[in-house]
Amino acid sequence: MATPLPRDVIADNEALRLLYRSVRAQTCALVIGLSDADTTAQSMPDASPAKWHLAHTTWFFETMVLAAHEPGYQSFDPRYAYLFNSYYETLGERHARPKRGLLTRPTLDEIERYREHVDRALEQLLAAQPEPQTLMLVELGCHHEQQHQELLLTDILHLFSENPLHPVYAPLRRAPRPVAVAAPLTYTRYDAGIVEIGHSGSGFAFDCEGPRHPEIRPAFGLGNRCVTNREWLEFMADGGYRTPLLWLSDGWTEVQRQNWTMPLYWWQESGAYATMTLHGAQPLELDAPVSHISYFEADAFASWAGKRLPTESEWESVAQHQAGDGNFADSGLLRPAPAGGCGHGPQQLFGDVWEWTRSSFSPYPGFHPSAGAVGEYNGKFMSGQYVLRGGSCVTPAKHIRATYRNFFRPDARWQFAGVRLAEDA
Amino acid sequence: MATPLPRDVIADNEALRLLYRSVRAQTCALVIGLSDADTTAQSMPDASPAKWHLAHTTWFFETMVLAAHEPGYQSFDPRYAYLFNSYYETLGERHARPKRGLLTRPTLDEIERYREHVDRALEQLLAAQPEPQTLMLVELGCHHEQQHQELLLTDILHLFSENPLHPVYAPLRRAPRPVAVAAPLTYTRYDAGIVEIGHSGSGFAFDCEGPRHPEIRPAFGLGNRCVTNREWLEFMADGGYRTPLLWLSDGWTEVQRQNWTMPLYWWQESGAYATMTLHGAQPLELDAPVSHISYFEADAFASWAGKRLPTESEWESVAQHQAGDGNFADSGLLRPAPAGGCGHGPQQLFGDVWEWTRSSFSPYPGFHPSAGAVGEYNGKFMSGQYVLRGGSCVTPAKHIRATYRNFFRPDARWQFAGVRLAEDA
Amino acid sequence: MATPLPRDVIADNEALRLLYRSVRAQTCALVIGLSDADTTAQSMPDASPAKWHLAHTTWFFETMVLAAHEPGYQSFDPRYAYLFNSYYETLGERHARPKRGLLTRPTLDEIERYREHVDRALEQLLAAQPEPQTLMLVELGCHHEQQHQELLLTDILHLFSENPLHPVYAPLRRAPRPVAVAAPLTYTRYDAGIVEIGHSGSGFAFDCEGPRHPEIRPAFGLGNRCVTNREWLEFMADGGYRTPLLWLSDGWTEVQRQNWTMPLYWWQESGAYATMTLHGAQPLELDAPVSHISYFEADAFASWAGKRLPTESEWESVAQHQAGDGNFADSGLLRPAPAGGCGHGPQQLFGDVWEWTRSSFSPYPGFHPSAGAVGEYNGKFMSGQYVLRGGSCVTPAKHIRATYRNFFRPDARWQFAGVRLAEDA
Amino acid sequence: MATPLPRDVIADNEALRLLYRSVRAQTCALVIGLSDADTTAQSMPDASPAKWHLAHTTWFFETMVLAAHEPGYQSFDPRYAYLFNSYYETLGERHARPKRGLLTRPTLDEIERYREHVDRALEQLLAAQPEPQTLMLVELGCHHEQQHQELLLTDILHLFSENPLHPVYAPLRRAPRPVAVAAPLTYTRYDAGIVEIGHSGSGFAFDCEGPRHPEIRPAFGLGNRCVTNREWLEFMADGGYRTPLLWLSDGWTEVQRQNWTMPLYWWQESGAYATMTLHGAQPLELDAPVSHISYFEADAFASWAGKRLPTESEWESVAQHQAGDGNFADSGLLRPAPAGGCGHGPQQLFGDVWEWTRSSFSPYPGFHPSAGAVGEYNGKFMSGQYVLRGGSCVTPAKHIRATYRNFFRPDARWQFAGVRLAEDA
Repeated sequence: MATPLPRDVIADNEALRLLYRSVRAQTCALVIGLSDADTTAQSMPDASPAKWHLAHTTWFFETMVLAAHEPGYQSFDPRYAYLFNSYYETLGERHARPKRGLLTRPTLDEIERYREHVDRALEQLLAAQPEPQTLMLVELGCHHEQQHQELLLTDILHLFSENPLHPVYAPLRRAPRPVAVAAPLTYTRYDAGIVEIGHSGSGFAFDCEGPRHPEIRPAFGLGNRCVTNREWLEFMADGGYRTPLLWLSDGWTEVQRQNWTMPLYWWQESGAYATMTLHGAQPLELDAPVSHISYFEADAFASWAGKRLPTESEWESVAQHQAGDGNFADSGLLRPAPAGGCGHGPQQLFGDVWEWTRSSFSPYPGFHPSAGAVGEYNGKFMSGQYVLRGGSCVTPAKHIRATYRNFFRPDARWQFAGVRLAEDA
Repeated sequence: MATPLPRDVIADNEALRLLYRSVRAQTCALVIGLSDADTTAQSMPDASPAKWHLAHTTWFFETMVLAAHEPGYQSFDPRYAYLFNSYYETLGERHARPKRGLLTRPTLDEIERYREHVDRALEQLLAAQPEPQTLMLVELGCHHEQQHQELLLTDILHLFSENPLHPVYAPLRRAPRPVAVAAPLTYTRYDAGIVEIGHSGSGFAFDCEGPRHPEIRPAFGLGNRCVTNREWLEFMADGGYRTPLLWLSDGWTEVQRQNWTMPLYWWQESGAYATMTLHGAQPLELDAPVSHISYFEADAFASWAGKRLPTESEWESVAQHQAGDGNFADSGLLRPAPAGGCGHGPQQLFGDVWEWTRSSFSPYPGFHPSAGAVGEYNGKFMSGQYVLRGGSCVTPAKHIRATYRNFFRPDARWQFAGVRLAEDA
Repeated sequence: MATPLPRDVIADNEALRLLYRSVRAQTCALVIGLSDADTTAQSMPDASPAKWHLAHTTWFFETMVLAAHEPGYQSFDPRYAYLFNSYYETLGERHARPKRGLLTRPTLDEIERYREHVDRALEQLLAAQPEPQTLMLVELGCHHEQQHQELLLTDILHLFSENPLHPVYAPLRRAPRPVAVAAPLTYTRYDAGIVEIGHSGSGFAFDCEGPRHPEIRPAFGLGNRCVTNREWLEFMADGGYRTPLLWLSDGWTEVQRQNWTMPLYWWQESGAYATMTLHGAQPLELDAPVSHISYFEADAFASWAGKRLPTESEWESVAQHQAGDGNFADSGLLRPAPAGGCGHGPQQLFGDVWEWTRSSFSPYPGFHPSAGAVGEYNGKFMSGQYVLRGGSCVTPAKHIRATYRNFFRPDARWQFAGVRLAEDA
Repeated sequence: MATPLPRDVIADNEALRLLYRSVRAQTCALVIGLSDADTTAQSMPDASPAKWHLAHTTWFFETMVLAAHEPGYQSFDPRYAYLFNSYYETLGERHARPKRGLLTRPTLDEIERYREHVDRALEQLLAAQPEPQTLMLVELGCHHEQQHQELLLTDILHLFSENPLHPVYAPLRRAPRPVAVAAPLTYTRYDAGIVEIGHSGSGFAFDCEGPRHPEIRPAFGLGNRCVTNREWLEFMADGGYRTPLLWLSDGWTEVQRQNWTMPLYWWQESGAYATMTLHGAQPLELDAPVSHISYFEADAFASWAGKRLPTESEWESVAQHQAGDGNFADSGLLRPAPAGGCGHGPQQLFGDVWEWTRSSFSPYPGFHPSAGAVGEYNGKFMSGQYVLRGGSCVTPAKHIRATYRNFFRPDARWQFAGVRLAEDA
């Protein structure tokens, strides 16, 4: 949850209104070209239908903001409270997650009317100079919706990957960019010292990004770019997926259980590798960062390379240095220069692929979940997950920052997740 | 498969053309009012999407008739052979059954164009005086499609039952009719003797309905109507779902595993029972035949009532007597008079609910599957299934006949299946 | 349950006492040479520990006879009623079947004392001229215990087969005997007619073996011997386990799920086949009947051979002819002459391997389970099982008779079950 | 693996011999009073049979020391290499873990002869002044065996808890001791600062206990004793197991899936609570530390109490202070004074119950697994596990030290694991 202090962006009601409008419009833009059925299907329990993302993000504003802080608000359909609650135990019973794909009704049209209904009420509320606490919840809702924009894309890709016809989501490129030149993989050396990590200051951040606190960082080296598909092919050719000693015990279990032999979405076709992307089936780009790999695969690759994954504090302390003081989005530097550029320091830190760290998702010293339903936002997921950093090619640019802690289970593969290596000094 | 002898209906090419057209049109009529998403979702592995039914029945004609017997036929999309094969091992690899709901593409529109493409080719073929063997395959395809018409309806009902909004499929009634008067349940007595069952003669029948053969039928009594919802409530009130001694061992396991306490689609609401139907949520009709029960429930009810389920030969020998010579559809008597009528003999034998028999689905003496892909039609399912007789309120009327052997697993509940009791004489 | 009429064997109290003593002694003899641990372990949920068989058969006499009919009987340990009830819902809660292998206590010694305790009480009861109904329960208990003698051996074999050390249960031969000469497989022809099957008369039989009743048997041919291991190897060499069209749909699912490529207990070793037996690992005897195959495999083999499995009525009507009037054990002809003998009629009908029939286990016309707990004996298992006939090399000789209906699920492989082919005339 | 430098204890060959002898004798003493069957059964995949523990610890010496470093060593039975390898991929194929309970052979007697065989060879090797590297492996084997001594006891308790007869393992007390007086739960305050944790110096430690390194420890308070059964009952009475907001998301899933309502081994009996212990069923001791709880339960309890679990560095920095220089066993202070004593600082840190920390089991900075098979000892388990500290009432006293990092999955409950609370300062 947002840090519970009034901040500039909130004080500036107009800025928040613009944020709200642009985020809401962007979500709608994501489903242009998708059919009613495309937005309804659910390809696995971890993924959700696009239509559900549209409705759930709306439900969030309706429930957390309008129902709680706008007296006299008339809900669009009281049954939606049950249908579109994701996991908030505070807010009562909800529809079973694995059955989201069965909700052929309400239709996509109805959900779009639902969005308009809530948008009108929200605009009225914002016009009426609400309390700072209410404004902060609106801001939180915008960032929550940006998270779902990314998930909508990862989930559509997974759905389309299950279709033998390989449908094209969008002709536009939404894939990790290759390095301009096949830059050799080198390591930038950092000295030992005490670093500060975690969010502070006036920008928005989720509750789990704070409190800012010092950590001891040992001397280490950080890879100057992400691992590429070309390098991953070497790992495969060297028997990486058949050598148990490279793997964590749980990872090797998954390799065998799921018959992993290559990243998700890859396949072999007449001697070469192809991959499923948001613009359909494509030949593999050898110099692009490898993506759609699990933590287990990232860790095994690092073992094979004689390296390791970076920790959160190693990654963030370097990224802060590049992005400015802990909040990337505020720095104006939304997308750093492409790799292969000047060569000073690590490239591709932001906006290519999420980078697995070796850090479990756990509370920073002094962390306390917020009171109320929004307290369920992050804290209750602090077991069994690893932190990823940096943002991917499908992360909204304004959603990327150096302190951002994304997290997934170590066997998850459907995100745009890759690997950057580190080494002990 | 159809008995491999030329028959009248086939000799009459024009009659077959009319059959083909009416069956194909009826299938399309079933999806009027359904959205693209409604026709795409799959609510459980046993059920299939409506769109898939539309495509698979078309694939049957394309593969079994056009590809095999029409030189120069151009397939609509060669990838459909993989997507819409149901279970024919002879015809190669196929899309995994539990993933049918992920096929948001092709869209419903595209499938309708696919249907038109095949219809045009089929009409041309029929116009060209094909071989009798080809005509028989067309006839088989029509009856195959009628089976899928019923499944489309049972599957849509299951999908809509999973939706908390209880969508209405159709305002028209498609539910078992109540008996006109609450007729008391009596038993018509039949003497022991040798009866002949199984298909013979000129009408169409599936391969498993023959050969016609004699069986020894002991003296017995057959219930004059189906068990009603009212009677089922008595069974429930008497602890029927909590008394293991009433149940087959496997049945009791299912009761516990799935927490069965009433038929599928029932629930309690302010003291009364409601049920999900094709015209939405409705109050329970007490004098209608109970429906959506498993074999295990039917058998437990019979034990509770001190009766038993009839055998196939008991049922069919009585039904033939009513329907005429072994083929109900040919008799012109498509829907028998409602129960509560004259009271002579069993009522509701045809077209209300499928009636579970105590007979396992096994081959009649002398049965041999046909050669080729159509040989996979019925024979390979002859284990683990029980036979149901009579046809339901969603069975196409022309598809009902006294020799018809429907079959499902004993735990299946999503069909319009009910129970008629029998007793030893 | 035994037919509820007093019969000679019961009238002869002394004969029953001898039966009781010999059956009880034979069970104890089966565990000579087994360790406490050998008799405790459970290798799968379908199998039970040897110690459990010793205790459960004793519990049967204690509960059904002594507790019910012997006033003042003191139970050995009242907690055993819970531990050693197999599946009788009438008799209350019981220990979970899959956890039988965790009962390291009571020890084998304690169970043997339990047996002595019950034996003493039972002898006293028999000495006191009890009611015929009580005597019939004692007789039923003896036959029940003979069933468990066979299961004890099949379960020990399964346990030892899971041990890479291949322990030897007994140096004595307990395996299907090979045919003396590699007799060619021929078919004895039988004419169509009405046959009577099912138990009648004075000997013991389980409830499900009656009532005796007429059935119409079509003309058919029955294989003169069981299928041999040599013939099974031909099926394997011809791709039998890789050809889906030979299999029932459920069978093919099992082939893939369990990776069946040969009968249970077979493996390849330096080019030849070996098999696990009760006397340890042994080379495969090519002319012995194939054993440890499922119904699905038996049916697929028959399809491959262009034949089919016999029905119950076909098998029994032929077997009666050989064994005398419906009760083999009474005929004195306990083990028929080995195959390859005179060549008149089918050989190996009794005591080699159980022979899968194509008949589902269902009630004979007029069958009613007995009242009380013994009514749970057979009737509640009449779904999902197939009948086997003839008895195996580990069936007690006195337990073999022409009317005996053994039954197992179609995927069960750990019994000594094989296949005899039949053909339509 | 042991730190790869020669150390005093190893230089002193005689001390190692004494250690070896005492550890080996202690293991054998643990199975006195157990039957062959007791030592064979396996009550769940996470647990192993006692006999397997006896054999596997012997296999470790045979494989890691004798086979690798003693030319001419004759193995007792070459098949044991397959049977008793636990999880070492380096050392080839092994028997499937969930099937350990099926190994009724070799018998307990044979395993004891196997132990003697290896002991004789090991003593000869030690007498022959082996290389320091070999000595270190012997020392590692002794500590490895101590780990299995504890597991043998936790596994026997689990097995006996599954037996409705509640067998008694030992009349001696092996259970967490109650606090002498119901001491109120207070928190000792520690200031923020840089602490050093991890093993260093001359004593033995496992590889994952190092390298010693600095960490920033925030100001915090540590509970002066463990949470008691009495306090746990308050948590239960307050609906702790029914309040989802207290639980981690994964924890709540387990609560529902496994129907947790109290710690493992508890049950209610005539209004009071009883619990299964190594000396049989016992009434619950209200002032003893709660035990047999999962991480999820520990964490939920802390949330309910408004506190949190300590981190590894918080726990170890306090424990070092008490135990001396990082190695408790060496300090001679094997069992600290019982709680309720002088009141200075936390009590019950060592030897009562393992204490869940909130730290995931992850590598210390600079950690590298050893080369060879022993490198699989700890590193490959560094995902999905939480660290426990302190040792329990069944941990060998010499095996307890302040740097020891035990680890289990967050849903594991069969260990003697409890909870000590911490709070932010």
